[in-house]
Amino acid sequence: MASAESFPPVVENVGAKGRLVLVCEHASNHFPQPWGDLGLTPEQRAAHIAWDPGALQVARGLAQRLDAVLIHAPVSRLIYDLNRAPDMKGAMPARSEIHDIPGNAAIPPEERAARTRAVYLPWTNGLHNLLATRIALGLAPVVVTVHSFTPIFHGRPRAVEFGVIHDADASLAVAILGAAHKLTRLNVELNSPYSAADDVTHTLRLQATPYGLPNAMLEIRNDLISTAAAAERMAETLAPVLNMGLTEIQKQAKAS
Amino acid sequence: MASAESFPPVVENVGAKGRLVLVCEHASNHFPQPWGDLGLTPEQRAAHIAWDPGALQVARGLAQRLDAVLIHAPVSRLIYDLNRAPDMKGAMPARSEIHDIPGNAAIPPEERAARTRAVYLPWTNGLHNLLATRIALGLAPVVVTVHSFTPIFHGRPRAVEFGVIHDADASLAVAILGAAHKLTRLNVELNSPYSAADDVTHTLRLQATPYGLPNAMLEIRNDLISTAAAAERMAETLAPVLNMGLTEIQKQAKAS
Repeated sequence: MASAESFPPVVENVGAKGRLVLVCEHASNHFPQPWGDLGLTPEQRAAHIAWDPGALQVARGLAQRLDAVLIHAPVSRLIYDLNRAPDMKGAMPARSEIHDIPGNAAIPPEERAARTRAVYLPWTNGLHNLLATRIALGLAPVVVTVHSFTPIFHGRPRAVEFGVIHDADASLAVAILGAAHKLTRLNVELNSPYSAADDVTHTLRLQATPYGLPNAMLEIRNDLISTAAAAERMAETLAPVLNMGLTEIQKQAKAS
Repeated sequence: MASAESFPPVVENVGAKGRLVLVCEHASNHFPQPWGDLGLTPEQRAAHIAWDPGALQVARGLAQRLDAVLIHAPVSRLIYDLNRAPDMKGAMPARSEIHDIPGNAAIPPEERAARTRAVYLPWTNGLHNLLATRIALGLAPVVVTVHSFTPIFHGRPRAVEFGVIHDADASLAVAILGAAHKLTRLNVELNSPYSAADDVTHTLRLQATPYGLPNAMLEIRNDLISTAAAAERMAETLAPVLNMGLTEIQKQAKAS
């Protein structure tokens, strides 16, 4: 199944002047050749195991409201999960929640390398190019990844509606949490429904931490953004939250 | 001076099977167009401010002896210092030790971005491609950067002959230090003549730490490798040192 084809990220709003760089690793449930459907049913390919439903719509709504550039994935996370390093099981998972992924049952090293070259490297290099160029221009980028999560996982309902997750630097996540408490009625939690300890912060570790860029990972419960109108309302709710979070860390930076 | 031209890294021994990936950010004192000599004299362009004399020869000798891939820079560190992020002053320094760099006196943001695109991004992406592909193949890469330093800095002589510098993960540096004490008569020191606190570990932070790859930065006093024969002798001395260091961290990994 090795392929010379390359699946670069999609970049929108590239001329944006704001500090915010929005990242959507699980934007797509596209299953292109040479991999195809990996043996999954249409229902499985539409479910949260294949992508983060609604996340791209919310990220687009935020990008428009906050003058932010947006970068998003072109293929399903089951072909390559762009928020995982190539040696993590979750990069090309053989099982996701309660579903076996037949096309990922036994991936030989050469095929792992082929998917890494075709999907992971164009993505990581594309995001890195965006960030490093903005750093060089003095635009002081801030990295925020936008995700959604399933309301029921392994049969158990999740009460949290909006999770804010941090890696080494908690400052932006804590500022966003505070703003969400002030400005919204969402059930908001820090490092929920999972945290850096679950290896879900690869993008932040790779792209933000080495440059000292403020960063956070947003998780929205997907039943709250299951229609285009609902996703638009969520962007309307969260845009001032992100804005207040950014203002807060800028205040802290000036004071220190 | 903005340029669309790209200066990718040079990769040697790309089919090497060993874990070691040798990196030489300051291998070159080449000053290509569109930047040219930056207003420097031939003597300045041959001095340690422009590159790390002897480092590439030692790295090549190590690559041959240890079945290691080697990646090295194609242009002088005064055009872009590949061991610095684009917002660090040292990336395109206006002054280095006791020398003003006329061509770097006042670099506008657009020119900083142009050098970042032309030199820094092809380098960082090239090294990242090499490492991520090897990670995907299960080769468990180990990153070692090879540098040299001037015996007299700001008029003061330096006694240390071989410095081993670490970033967040000290394990490989400490193992190499122990091996150098056992196997050589060099004056060896940890985190000397400088350390991560001096912002000299950008490559390790960006390329090794996010993937949990063992890593270290080697610094060799350049008067000890000032001829091809001397550099070859140094590679002959250091190859078993690196080998013993690698064996030590493999033992530790198995025990843990």
